[in-house]
Amino acid sequence: MTKGNINVSVENIFPLIKKFLYSDHEIFLRELISNATDATLKLKHLTSIGDAKVEYGNPQIEIKIDKKGKKLHIIDQGIGMTADEVEKYINQIAFSGAEEFLDKYKDSGKDSGIIGHFGLGFYSAFMVAEKVDIITKSFKDEPAVIWTCDGSPEFTLEPHDKTERGTEIILHIAEDSTEFLEEARINSLLTKYNKFMPIPIKFGTKEVTIPLAEDAPKDAKPKKETVDNIINNPNPAWTKQPADLEDENYKSFYRELYPTQFEEPLFHIHLNVDYPFNLTGILYFPKMTTDLNIQKDKIQLYQNQVFVTDNVEGIVPEFLTMLRGVIDSPDIPLNVSRSYLQADGAVKKISSYITRKVADKLKSLFNNNREDFEAKWNDIKIVIEYGMLSEDKFFEKADAFALYPTVDGKYYTYEELFNKIKANQTDKDGKLVILYASNEDAQHSYIEAATAKGYEVLLLDSPIISHLMQKLESTKENITFTRVDADHIDNLIKKDDTKISKLTDEQKTELETILKEVIPAEKFSVQLETMDNTSTPFMITQPEFMRRMKEMQQTGGGMFGMGNMPDMYNLVVNTNSELVGEILATKTKKKQERLITQSLDLARLSQGLLKGEELTNFIKRSYEMIK
Amino acid sequence: MTKGNINVSVENIFPLIKKFLYSDHEIFLRELISNATDATLKLKHLTSIGDAKVEYGNPQIEIKIDKKGKKLHIIDQGIGMTADEVEKYINQIAFSGAEEFLDKYKDSGKDSGIIGHFGLGFYSAFMVAEKVDIITKSFKDEPAVIWTCDGSPEFTLEPHDKTERGTEIILHIAEDSTEFLEEARINSLLTKYNKFMPIPIKFGTKEVTIPLAEDAPKDAKPKKETVDNIINNPNPAWTKQPADLEDENYKSFYRELYPTQFEEPLFHIHLNVDYPFNLTGILYFPKMTTDLNIQKDKIQLYQNQVFVTDNVEGIVPEFLTMLRGVIDSPDIPLNVSRSYLQADGAVKKISSYITRKVADKLKSLFNNNREDFEAKWNDIKIVIEYGMLSEDKFFEKADAFALYPTVDGKYYTYEELFNKIKANQTDKDGKLVILYASNEDAQHSYIEAATAKGYEVLLLDSPIISHLMQKLESTKENITFTRVDADHIDNLIKKDDTKISKLTDEQKTELETILKEVIPAEKFSVQLETMDNTSTPFMITQPEFMRRMKEMQQTGGGMFGMGNMPDMYNLVVNTNSELVGEILATKTKKKQERLITQSLDLARLSQGLLKGEELTNFIKRSYEMIK
Repeated sequence: MTKGNINVSVENIFPLIKKFLYSDHEIFLRELISNATDATLKLKHLTSIGDAKVEYGNPQIEIKIDKKGKKLHIIDQGIGMTADEVEKYINQIAFSGAEEFLDKYKDSGKDSGIIGHFGLGFYSAFMVAEKVDIITKSFKDEPAVIWTCDGSPEFTLEPHDKTERGTEIILHIAEDSTEFLEEARINSLLTKYNKFMPIPIKFGTKEVTIPLAEDAPKDAKPKKETVDNIINNPNPAWTKQPADLEDENYKSFYRELYPTQFEEPLFHIHLNVDYPFNLTGILYFPKMTTDLNIQKDKIQLYQNQVFVTDNVEGIVPEFLTMLRGVIDSPDIPLNVSRSYLQADGAVKKISSYITRKVADKLKSLFNNNREDFEAKWNDIKIVIEYGMLSEDKFFEKADAFALYPTVDGKYYTYEELFNKIKANQTDKDGKLVILYASNEDAQHSYIEAATAKGYEVLLLDSPIISHLMQKLESTKENITFTRVDADHIDNLIKKDDTKISKLTDEQKTELETILKEVIPAEKFSVQLETMDNTSTPFMITQPEFMRRMKEMQQTGGGMFGMGNMPDMYNLVVNTNSELVGEILATKTKKKQERLITQSLDLARLSQGLLKGEELTNFIKRSYEMIK
Repeated sequence: MTKGNINVSVENIFPLIKKFLYSDHEIFLRELISNATDATLKLKHLTSIGDAKVEYGNPQIEIKIDKKGKKLHIIDQGIGMTADEVEKYINQIAFSGAEEFLDKYKDSGKDSGIIGHFGLGFYSAFMVAEKVDIITKSFKDEPAVIWTCDGSPEFTLEPHDKTERGTEIILHIAEDSTEFLEEARINSLLTKYNKFMPIPIKFGTKEVTIPLAEDAPKDAKPKKETVDNIINNPNPAWTKQPADLEDENYKSFYRELYPTQFEEPLFHIHLNVDYPFNLTGILYFPKMTTDLNIQKDKIQLYQNQVFVTDNVEGIVPEFLTMLRGVIDSPDIPLNVSRSYLQADGAVKKISSYITRKVADKLKSLFNNNREDFEAKWNDIKIVIEYGMLSEDKFFEKADAFALYPTVDGKYYTYEELFNKIKANQTDKDGKLVILYASNEDAQHSYIEAATAKGYEVLLLDSPIISHLMQKLESTKENITFTRVDADHIDNLIKKDDTKISKLTDEQKTELETILKEVIPAEKFSVQLETMDNTSTPFMITQPEFMRRMKEMQQTGGGMFGMGNMPDMYNLVVNTNSELVGEILATKTKKKQERLITQSLDLARLSQGLLKGEELTNFIKRSYEMIK
């Protein structure tokens, strides 16, 4: 039996690291700035515990482009490295300095915010540089050195005359990566990845105007001054305590996150937890549209203030991916598959913590300022309804704040609605009938008929509402949702009272025969009903069940195959109406037909079913009738 | 000055490779089967050129789950390894055997289809296994060996009694990866990644029924037989020559690719190019809906029959990502950023090759069977129109096959349309006016008026059509697109003829005063026009420019800020109509008002502008008028 050690051959793995380790070349800058930040935070930590006897000061990280020399400089004022440390941290690939540091300062170092995970970040420089120099001087009293490597495994190390503490990385940008010598490109990278990193990052200078003193002479011109252009906010709102922030601070942070977004967020939720995982962040409810897809992927994920991704699928429950804001957690495993993420225990806990926090916040908003909550309901309902559908825990909690608006602008919780309508809207079988409309305009005449009866009509118009009704019907006891145009008003909520018919049974048979001669049977089933004589003579209705199943299929779900079923309509004819009397009394077939056609067209109009040539003909006929 | 070599330390890089190199753990199986395939293809090549004196036979790759023993086996009948080769290929990480093989057999090996890029694939096994055994016997006359490693850098190597040629990898699945011992999970991985790999892959067995012989006795029962369950199709359609395939073969391959897709594709495009890059594939045009987003990401990218991704953004021009099918190319760099891909010369060539092939295919379909092409137009137009908008080369080529359908079901090319209408639809300033409708139903009365004049009315209803019209107007000379309801018919295409007015100027002034008392000025600007006395009395129009700009903003583009402008409508009143005469003649204010209101409502109806309470009131009023 042979024993041995697996050998990693540098010649082969080096190009691999350079080319394949990161799928996105642009992240080299993030990695190098992370290293610079680590080096600075390490120094801060060592000075704070007295292990480094130097002045920490106000260090910053500087990014400089030397377009002519084709160089990019990343300069920090951090801990620096001695020749020995370069040998250890740079020449030994995959020897993670950060890990060793964290091990050594396990307890005191916990909050120092070290970013690096493993020592490969530096080598990402070779994705864009044909040669890299490191000029570094340690905070210890040792001479500076310069390390140079052209991407082959060979390097050189020499003394250098650098006197200030810290490290300067010089990238000699390769021919195929000259985009990284463009100021605009670097600026956009810094904005994307480093906008909230904890050490100030300087990128060039800018001119600012100094406001004039109040007693300045009238013709004095304001002075201009050149100052450092600091591209980041080292203390973003989410790293602060909620108690230290005003509403305005949250709003201005929102503008910082989404500078092109004009609309203000409706409200925010500050996340802050230490145990059993570390997570901070701020989530915002923006105004929602009904398009569920286009507004996703706005939440940004950070680790220790370094931007990682704006795809938080698997970390945030799906219905909350419509929110905006920031999540920062060192405990979310990266570089793993989404399916793994979803199965990971810690991530599951994070996800349910976020769901709980959102539900709690919504509840307190509702309790503290109901009027304001109602005013915002239409802009947030899609998230809440989606959450109720997809997360059972959220469904339970939402009972306390989910609102059911009516067509006349009232907002009920489910309990309030129940108490309000149970007396008037329970049918003869004891079932509570909740009436709703999906469109105030399109269903106007039906809504009018229902409100005239003293019924409450909800206005439910979210794209997923049919699914939510289905869920409510199976959760709450003995209730049913019915759209106002599902039948005529006396049938919507069946009570025991009976109407007296003006027509005899013979007359009804006669009427039916006459109607069926004119009305196409394949489009409408005629339904004679005894109603008030003031009720509309003709009316088109669409049974609830079929319609809802079709709607559910359109938004995913429902009963299979329903989506392709033809629409089913009933033509309700009010046998007590004057017009019906006139139809029966009319002697000439032609006039009778004209009466029926015009009435049918009017009924179709109020369901939005008269279109194209039929509408044009109706309009022509009506112009004739005006004259 | 010190010189030295950068050192990769195994202890540190090994966990890194295991954990971070692949973001998706599940790909370990793809990697190991790729290795097994390589080993088999190498043997095939060596036997074919006489370098291996063994029988190639019908080798297959077997995947076996040993749930009890928590093991997963991948067994091939390929080239195998000697002890020396294990030392070289396995113990030296990142020493790519495939590369060396390809180097050695540069010319003869070109078409042997070797998959491996670098030798790291094997180590992905440690993402899911706590221990890995390799039992392997070379095709050369040397003893078999077993190599074992528990994920530390230490390994053991011993002789083994395996007698059949080939390699067996045994993964001792780790506690956190037991999902990979589930048959269903492995089956779905095989289906995802290995469905079209070139060597048959066996996963268990299945029962098949053997059909009875024709002369079998009546009571004979069909026999059942257990056979190997081969999960892949080693010779998928795209690897064959177009000449060897019938239409039915393409359709059945489509069903193989999308087993849940019921609808057949409209047509296919076989891609096949050797130079200057290697690419094969089959693209299908499915039936398109108007939702541009939901149907993307259906094209699968392969490299040498190994599935890589279904995100082909950057490789296929964006407008073609709505197609379906397969692209297979070893020349597409993976693991690089999308922005890099888009800048890469080879990829640009691939992208424009695909565009050209699609355009050529469309042209030949149009030329060979115009009737069929017209029938399919509505299902494919969105792709073609999108392509015309986004790729100038495609725009030019599309002139030969892009169709402009009319409301009465004719289909013109641009040239045909131009010749057909230039006599009748050129206005007095020499501008060609192309009339169109976006909705046959909603614009019915306007279409009717235009066709009555002998004008051709196009039916253009794609969501991006307004952008395409804009582009055509700026490309073709002196043409303009105008929707049929942009003005009344005599103004749509202004000619030199003038109509004689029935009304005097005084009467016109009087009419205008009367109308403006009833018609809300903030909604409609009244426009008196001298038209035929048979033309409609009242008519609502919407100027083309504003409407189109608003539409363009809704689909991205157009003039900034137009999206929020209110809709602008004109009320065209035909001063020669009988009804207008009646309005003027009517003495009582109340009757006059009623005439105007009813006429306005009818005009609004035909533009779909009468809704809600106003519609309900109109209907009630009309029921009254019937009686």
